[in-house]
Amino acid sequence: MSTKEITNNRRSFLKTATLLGAASLYPIISFAETSLDVKSNILAEGKLILGMVVFDGFQLLDVFGPLDVFGSLRDKVSIIIIGEKGESAKSSAGPVLKLDYTFSNAPKIDILMIPGGGGTRREVKNEAFLKAFAVLAESAPHVATICTGSAVLAKTGLLDGHKATTNKRAYTWATSQSDKVTWVPEARWVEDGKFFTSSGVSAGIDMALGLIAKMFGKETAVRIANGAEYVWNDDPNRDPFAKMNGLIK
Amino acid sequence: MSTKEITNNRRSFLKTATLLGAASLYPIISFAETSLDVKSNILAEGKLILGMVVFDGFQLLDVFGPLDVFGSLRDKVSIIIIGEKGESAKSSAGPVLKLDYTFSNAPKIDILMIPGGGGTRREVKNEAFLKAFAVLAESAPHVATICTGSAVLAKTGLLDGHKATTNKRAYTWATSQSDKVTWVPEARWVEDGKFFTSSGVSAGIDMALGLIAKMFGKETAVRIANGAEYVWNDDPNRDPFAKMNGLIK
Repeated sequence: MSTKEITNNRRSFLKTATLLGAASLYPIISFAETSLDVKSNILAEGKLILGMVVFDGFQLLDVFGPLDVFGSLRDKVSIIIIGEKGESAKSSAGPVLKLDYTFSNAPKIDILMIPGGGGTRREVKNEAFLKAFAVLAESAPHVATICTGSAVLAKTGLLDGHKATTNKRAYTWATSQSDKVTWVPEARWVEDGKFFTSSGVSAGIDMALGLIAKMFGKETAVRIANGAEYVWNDDPNRDPFAKMNGLIK
Repeated sequence: MSTKEITNNRRSFLKTATLLGAASLYPIISFAETSLDVKSNILAEGKLILGMVVFDGFQLLDVFGPLDVFGSLRDKVSIIIIGEKGESAKSSAGPVLKLDYTFSNAPKIDILMIPGGGGTRREVKNEAFLKAFAVLAESAPHVATICTGSAVLAKTGLLDGHKATTNKRAYTWATSQSDKVTWVPEARWVEDGKFFTSSGVSAGIDMALGLIAKMFGKETAVRIANGAEYVWNDDPNRDPFAKMNGLIK
């Protein structure tokens, strides 16, 4: 999807929402004016935009676990990849992902996500990255972090006063990014207001399904998990890795 | 890693292996001749090459679940992405992955993998793809398929006479690609000789950990699963999705 298409879709949607006085965050069908792209269908007009922010040294499963499950909602959600600059981001394991947008031209995001990975050690010290990421996170109605992605969000200050969790092996480092966050040591994921924060790596899949359950209903989340032959840990408090890593007795 | 680096590493390794009369498939340290890249370390010389074959319409988690867990073995395994042609492949969910190689210039692969996804419907009819993929699969000492990736492998004929499994929802279509394969309806994954075939999507993570256990020891697989905060289903016969999809009573 091009910037222009998204901008047009966005503009149509916002205009429609204003016309209808619509408060719903999840318009599946909108009676939008005809966009400049006459081939676009009505459903596309109302799609939510999921923006995944990446950086060199991102952890593969942090990104692609959540995107795989949200990828099953093609009629409701468009996925875009956002980086600080350049044209791609290299994962810690090697594979290189193409960026669709950079911070400078990213559209408004409905569901913003940020993964963990070795690269977070660099980004918590990168003022330009933190500032641009915070702008997106402030305006997004849903913000989700996976693994040490919560360390980056915490560093912006936006998590202050909120409950959150993070990777259980990197817990000391991640939680040191802000002492104004109520860090939860035993949680698969934590929901607090618009923020969803998950535990390490694979926990992002469970959290993403939790977010889908909140937004589209639990039945939809269960259907997607079964389609991926995934045994969903649907209890945010069930976390065997807190004890394993000595965070609780 | 560049083609040149891989070719050099490969050449050094093969020469060393011949000199030593080494039969081991997993040389962690090789006494290789100095490669042209004097900065490369000895460990890098003996790295195995994991080649993930992708195509437009690949399923994200099929690719990045296994690559995430193998990505924890950076001192032993180099990951490369291979496609039929072009410079990238677009997943069914949208994100675009850069190719490191195409079939025409891919190096010899130690661990070959192929995912499933909507694109497999096209590739089972793509003679050029099947032929080139079969060449890689014939020479690779380990071949692993995720989800409907087994349909593509089955179509090459290389699975004939072997046991295998596949996605449980797309079971009828996938198994119709060869009636000379002994398809196993209830299995998280199946190992038969050099072939590892997994059930749908997330099952690829369990299978990849099973392959790591075989190649590097179960302790290594458990350590990687725990690091990813992943509750590994380590029993290839434990498959709740066979019954759910009506394949067994």
